[in-house]
Amino acid sequence: MEEEQLLKSGERINQLFSTDIKIIQNREVFSYSVDSVLLSRFPRFPKKGLIVDFCAGNGAVGLFASTRTQAQILSVEIQERLADMAERSVRLNGLEEQMQVICDDLKNMPAHIQGSKVDMILCNPPYFKVDPYSNLNESEHYLLARHEITTNLEEICHSAQSILKSNGRLAMVHRPDRLLDILDTLKRHNLAPKRLQFVYPKREKEANMLLIEAIKDGSTSGFKVLPPLIVHNDDGSYTPEIEEIYYGS
Amino acid sequence: MEEEQLLKSGERINQLFSTDIKIIQNREVFSYSVDSVLLSRFPRFPKKGLIVDFCAGNGAVGLFASTRTQAQILSVEIQERLADMAERSVRLNGLEEQMQVICDDLKNMPAHIQGSKVDMILCNPPYFKVDPYSNLNESEHYLLARHEITTNLEEICHSAQSILKSNGRLAMVHRPDRLLDILDTLKRHNLAPKRLQFVYPKREKEANMLLIEAIKDGSTSGFKVLPPLIVHNDDGSYTPEIEEIYYGS
Repeated sequence: MEEEQLLKSGERINQLFSTDIKIIQNREVFSYSVDSVLLSRFPRFPKKGLIVDFCAGNGAVGLFASTRTQAQILSVEIQERLADMAERSVRLNGLEEQMQVICDDLKNMPAHIQGSKVDMILCNPPYFKVDPYSNLNESEHYLLARHEITTNLEEICHSAQSILKSNGRLAMVHRPDRLLDILDTLKRHNLAPKRLQFVYPKREKEANMLLIEAIKDGSTSGFKVLPPLIVHNDDGSYTPEIEEIYYGS
Repeated sequence: MEEEQLLKSGERINQLFSTDIKIIQNREVFSYSVDSVLLSRFPRFPKKGLIVDFCAGNGAVGLFASTRTQAQILSVEIQERLADMAERSVRLNGLEEQMQVICDDLKNMPAHIQGSKVDMILCNPPYFKVDPYSNLNESEHYLLARHEITTNLEEICHSAQSILKSNGRLAMVHRPDRLLDILDTLKRHNLAPKRLQFVYPKREKEANMLLIEAIKDGSTSGFKVLPPLIVHNDDGSYTPEIEEIYYGS
């Protein structure tokens, strides 16, 4: 289909240069960012089977992941407008055979997936807790994508535990200030963290992102902290590891 | 006192060049390493008050810390031979007014410190769990310093909770593969982690050390992952941050 026919008002197409994937974006409602790109490069993907992308937004994580595995990919997004963008991006890339988009609440996963048969769950969830001090003056689309309003860590881990195979894996991107919460919640749902990686904006800056992979019903031995992922050189340019992820080597 | 009079057979004196501190070492029984140096540079020291160094070994952590605070420092070591080395290093540096060495088990801390009055605890503990697969073919001195035989995380956190002031801090160096254990144990003893830093031997290597600071009875908000501490450049030389710690700037 012609690209123009797939675009609605305010939308544009972005391409991640290290892949051929094109993504429909709309700054007014949602744009993917470095988080999604890093998440889609982090896990040890199953070669085949079933991958589910929770909190899929405009589908970026699943779309990037499609270049790294033959597995079926199911993207789940609660916001209709974003799910619709994701679905059109699937068509734009001719990935209808490999990818499917569902617009629904994570609470309803059992209606879509019967039993525990998922090999991997990817998740770029809302990062911020909602409390009386939260600044909720954002547009609705960003609000739901950023704040734990329609879902939260507890529900993500609960859903993951129920649909993952034994030894299936959950890979998530999140913020370091939530690390204690994340580890507690994984533990309560018998998801054993195995690999943790911190992302530092520059070498002398605090971490501003983390990537974590946990195994359903796994043991807690063999936990590793992977090499640091540093985004910018001192002069502001991208480091070689990020150049490679963005533009390919 | 003359340096020679303080040395016993097999011992030598090492100096950390970024301080004037001299440390009595004996490779047969124990030598301080980079762990102790990094721990002594990590915490936000109280200006005065009381600091206790748990699992003090030959006293290196407390001796280095003495250059960064006016607080009294009490070093606690269970092995007599190491405590004796630590005590002689205190005299070697003329620090008898600021530092004291106790040879005892952490279980007996209440006999030495009545009530909760400690501002900061430093701890470079044994790193390894003892299980049926442990390789325990080391000399007794190294065995006790490296393996959780005479003490363990549980006991360290229990002792820390009992002698720290409210809002007093525990700063510890440990291994990343124990992170989940460490966070669980701190939590069970109401010690809230606030600052976590990972040490990477090289930029493209997994972390092999961590530094953590927890506050007694603190809230779990405001948790931070500090900038990465990378020890070696690609060519094997020390990075500027480590040069500064070892040799001063």
